[in-house]
Amino acid sequence: MTDQLAHAPSYLAEYVEQVDALRELGYRYWQEGWSRGTSSNYSVLLQRDPMHILVTASGKDKGRLSRGDFVVVDGAGNRIHEDAPKSSAETLLHCIGYQCLPEVGAILHTHSPWATVLSQRFFPAKGIELQDFEMLKGLRGVTTHQQTVWLPIFDNTQDIPALAAQVQLFAQNYPSQLAYGYLIRRHGLYTWGRDLDEAARHVEVLEFLLECLGRTICMQ
Amino acid sequence: MTDQLAHAPSYLAEYVEQVDALRELGYRYWQEGWSRGTSSNYSVLLQRDPMHILVTASGKDKGRLSRGDFVVVDGAGNRIHEDAPKSSAETLLHCIGYQCLPEVGAILHTHSPWATVLSQRFFPAKGIELQDFEMLKGLRGVTTHQQTVWLPIFDNTQDIPALAAQVQLFAQNYPSQLAYGYLIRRHGLYTWGRDLDEAARHVEVLEFLLECLGRTICMQ
Amino acid sequence: MTDQLAHAPSYLAEYVEQVDALRELGYRYWQEGWSRGTSSNYSVLLQRDPMHILVTASGKDKGRLSRGDFVVVDGAGNRIHEDAPKSSAETLLHCIGYQCLPEVGAILHTHSPWATVLSQRFFPAKGIELQDFEMLKGLRGVTTHQQTVWLPIFDNTQDIPALAAQVQLFAQNYPSQLAYGYLIRRHGLYTWGRDLDEAARHVEVLEFLLECLGRTICMQ
Amino acid sequence: MTDQLAHAPSYLAEYVEQVDALRELGYRYWQEGWSRGTSSNYSVLLQRDPMHILVTASGKDKGRLSRGDFVVVDGAGNRIHEDAPKSSAETLLHCIGYQCLPEVGAILHTHSPWATVLSQRFFPAKGIELQDFEMLKGLRGVTTHQQTVWLPIFDNTQDIPALAAQVQLFAQNYPSQLAYGYLIRRHGLYTWGRDLDEAARHVEVLEFLLECLGRTICMQ
Repeated sequence: MTDQLAHAPSYLAEYVEQVDALRELGYRYWQEGWSRGTSSNYSVLLQRDPMHILVTASGKDKGRLSRGDFVVVDGAGNRIHEDAPKSSAETLLHCIGYQCLPEVGAILHTHSPWATVLSQRFFPAKGIELQDFEMLKGLRGVTTHQQTVWLPIFDNTQDIPALAAQVQLFAQNYPSQLAYGYLIRRHGLYTWGRDLDEAARHVEVLEFLLECLGRTICMQ
Repeated sequence: MTDQLAHAPSYLAEYVEQVDALRELGYRYWQEGWSRGTSSNYSVLLQRDPMHILVTASGKDKGRLSRGDFVVVDGAGNRIHEDAPKSSAETLLHCIGYQCLPEVGAILHTHSPWATVLSQRFFPAKGIELQDFEMLKGLRGVTTHQQTVWLPIFDNTQDIPALAAQVQLFAQNYPSQLAYGYLIRRHGLYTWGRDLDEAARHVEVLEFLLECLGRTICMQ
Repeated sequence: MTDQLAHAPSYLAEYVEQVDALRELGYRYWQEGWSRGTSSNYSVLLQRDPMHILVTASGKDKGRLSRGDFVVVDGAGNRIHEDAPKSSAETLLHCIGYQCLPEVGAILHTHSPWATVLSQRFFPAKGIELQDFEMLKGLRGVTTHQQTVWLPIFDNTQDIPALAAQVQLFAQNYPSQLAYGYLIRRHGLYTWGRDLDEAARHVEVLEFLLECLGRTICMQ
Repeated sequence: MTDQLAHAPSYLAEYVEQVDALRELGYRYWQEGWSRGTSSNYSVLLQRDPMHILVTASGKDKGRLSRGDFVVVDGAGNRIHEDAPKSSAETLLHCIGYQCLPEVGAILHTHSPWATVLSQRFFPAKGIELQDFEMLKGLRGVTTHQQTVWLPIFDNTQDIPALAAQVQLFAQNYPSQLAYGYLIRRHGLYTWGRDLDEAARHVEVLEFLLECLGRTICMQ
């Protein structure tokens, strides 16, 4: 990363390691085509009680995130530091995730072409059922390809509290050990993990499975 | 970039920063497969009155642009400096863009496979309507995925003044705040922004949406 | 590779060259999308009698393998060094490969999208017949595109000894000079070579041919 | 390129620049997936009378060509230096190209997935007609997208002299200023240029057009 991007604002000084890990992921996802056009957002949980979340600022180029492109918010999505930039428009989805899923330490949202087009195609079915793929074993706790994983698809809306309510309903009613992520229609994937490494592994697993699903449909 | 490409001709000495920003974009787009075979061209507006435009020279490999591969032209597309190389064959499309769109500071033309094949497929409809994609919010001023964006498709021709006249008609009659770009049949995409960063973001957004459209059709 | 990944545990000190060659391949295959989400595994034969195999540890990110992410096992798949990590769940498939194929010195398992979706599509036919492709000549001993190569597809199971038995049956009954690899349904490709270079060439050849097959079906 | 690959054998000492240019192209094409599994071969004309051709040696990994992986051959394909490695199996196709096309200075053979599958699909038509694409203007002498370019497809065979005879027939009977390349069924593309830069541009143009053709068929 270039020098000009390396200066951390004082309010993030103690989180430089987490900030840089998210910057590196942003560059990877941008290269993959999963975070283009300033889309997508990423967070890690800094502390649970009271809740502090490190999340990407709104509207930043994920291919060249600077250390200043991050915000710390509380559990309601409000900025902790007044001089920080505005947090991502979808910050509340991160807050709800950490509140409903007690073991989760990182939440990643990617916006890949396959997630975008498949979330439209399977929207009438309200979700995508993934099963019978060995790759599923890359998800925490899955020990056999015969495990079924359900990715619900929520309709897209700019009313983020309404979207958060749907996510909450899912997260509270679905067995949390089987809740690996969800899609928003024509908007992409949210997934998570106990830590950033696990969340990043879940991104790779779910994006791989969506690509396999898409290619299978193309061959029909 | 290698040393041999780093020498700037004297007439570009004051624009080295803009030249290098375009060279870097060229390398990225070439890597993506959006500027192969010397295709595509890029420009930034240096001053509006009288109009001076920095534009790529004709026929250069976009994967390894040197500092000498750029030209400054006036609003009619004529070279300002006699010893500069010939400007891109489509320079007039850049001139017309800056003249008709008063807030525009950079214009980028990419030539991707998806833009090429979809501009053919949708030519009978005279354009492509993009809507209902969250990614649309990466376009300046778009605040909801429900916004409709219209990308007109002009027929390809080697008569650039005739093509420029069509672009002019579009730019003058379509609400400028909703004019994000256009396609030329089997020739690719033109888009723009208030500055180079915004134009580059619009490239990413529109190329992403074209890819989504193409993959959706492949799945039908 | 970064410094923190460069420390080799003492029990691997004499195999650093082989370890680093496998780490480099892992990074390549991860970049290609053939080893995402900690999937796939790789091995080289260290000695045949008694059999010592260097194999990737279980559950590691193939894009950033450290020197400690490897294990030496014997011909039954048991760790030679007590302080080594757990070897890959599919270690037995590597052991069986070396036992049944006397000239083999390296075995590579990749898990690409094309191998995943085509192993499902062709499962009813029990395998994929590759012929008439010039690329086949990249396989050891193949001198004409008219050669037919059979890639059997075994059903996926978490019962690795049962899977190993099927592989053994194939390796023992099929002419060994024509046994270049096999697929596991929705799980990917196993291939091998006399040394790591040859095995890596076979990965490139077979993944290329699977991609050609997939694209051909998409065009139908 | 690593040091171990940088030693040039004495018989190539005077051609190090051309050797390194071909090594760099090999790496690029390997990365693109156009030269996998040791496939494809490249040459430049060193002198026309008597004819000396620098060509890749047989069976080398194009992603890591060393300086020793090249051979100088005469117009009949025979090695000039006894201690050089064996030249590519298809050397004669390069010799015929230089003999029939008097302005050609470099010949490149790539082996992409699209060229492989489309050369099969269009084999009954004996070739592929490319027209109406702006990208055609990247070919030497083409000034309008309305130009038609014919890429003949020859059947694949291991009888290289027989294949060379077909190439010769094409090159001698087709207007040389319109002969930009040919396909071999399920084997890939041959193209050329007055120098290596032009040949490399023609590779980019033709591979782009084949990709557009393939994606168009997938959308039907």
